[in-house]
Amino acid sequence: MEEAIRQARKSLNEGGIPIGSVIVRNEEILAVGHNKRVQEKNPILHGEMDCLNNLGRIGSFKDCTIYSTLMPCYMCGGTIVQFKIPKVIVGENKTFEGSQAFMESHGIKVTNLMLPECIEMMEQFIKENPDLWFEDIGEL
Amino acid sequence: MEEAIRQARKSLNEGGIPIGSVIVRNEEILAVGHNKRVQEKNPILHGEMDCLNNLGRIGSFKDCTIYSTLMPCYMCGGTIVQFKIPKVIVGENKTFEGSQAFMESHGIKVTNLMLPECIEMMEQFIKENPDLWFEDIGEL
Repeated sequence: MEEAIRQARKSLNEGGIPIGSVIVRNEEILAVGHNKRVQEKNPILHGEMDCLNNLGRIGSFKDCTIYSTLMPCYMCGGTIVQFKIPKVIVGENKTFEGSQAFMESHGIKVTNLMLPECIEMMEQFIKENPDLWFEDIGEL
Repeated sequence: MEEAIRQARKSLNEGGIPIGSVIVRNEEILAVGHNKRVQEKNPILHGEMDCLNNLGRIGSFKDCTIYSTLMPCYMCGGTIVQFKIPKVIVGENKTFEGSQAFMESHGIKVTNLMLPECIEMMEQFIKENPDLWFEDIGEL
């Protein structure tokens, strides 16, 4: 999760949305990513999607865990369900409810750490950039 | 749908998975795309995702319709739900059940044309490339 937070802060420093993600297998980091809506003008590159985009084709995800600083939305949750990534560890869901119930209904184990650091980062970002945030979650 | 089928055949000719997609607003094609798992070694570029990837940031999708030669999977269905693309028109769901019920439970209108051309294209592809197909839908 430390690396996911580092990815989120990197995105913020690039002028982007501060959400980061890491995919891990057997305690080894396979790939990292962060939201690139602003940086690459790309609506599908949420943190988790960028992480998989950077990872490329690894076949099965069955022993993988994905970390995200924020609860995955339905796009990212749907991706986790479709590719059967069995474990998700998130920084918080206070600022965005996301798709926890949907993922759990498909047997994904979701752990929410409710980290103050992640909550504060998103609360400040949403306060300063509400239009960008609502665009990112399809609420325009 | 003709253009989506053209996109699917283009992917097949490139050595890729034959699924194509088109996004339309007010009878105007905004973007086209096709599956690029093979071509770009990318697990997230299903046809629908590539289409949005090519489209870029348009803000709201509220007047858009997305066409796909095949019923969207949970990744693509989750994306449609998250970004509130209200209408989905698909070529078929005989070769892949996808996420129709999930999308409909979120108010998306899904129309299935059950086109023999789309069914035949996928049946032949799956018969000839089962491993690639099962990788693409996370069934490895």
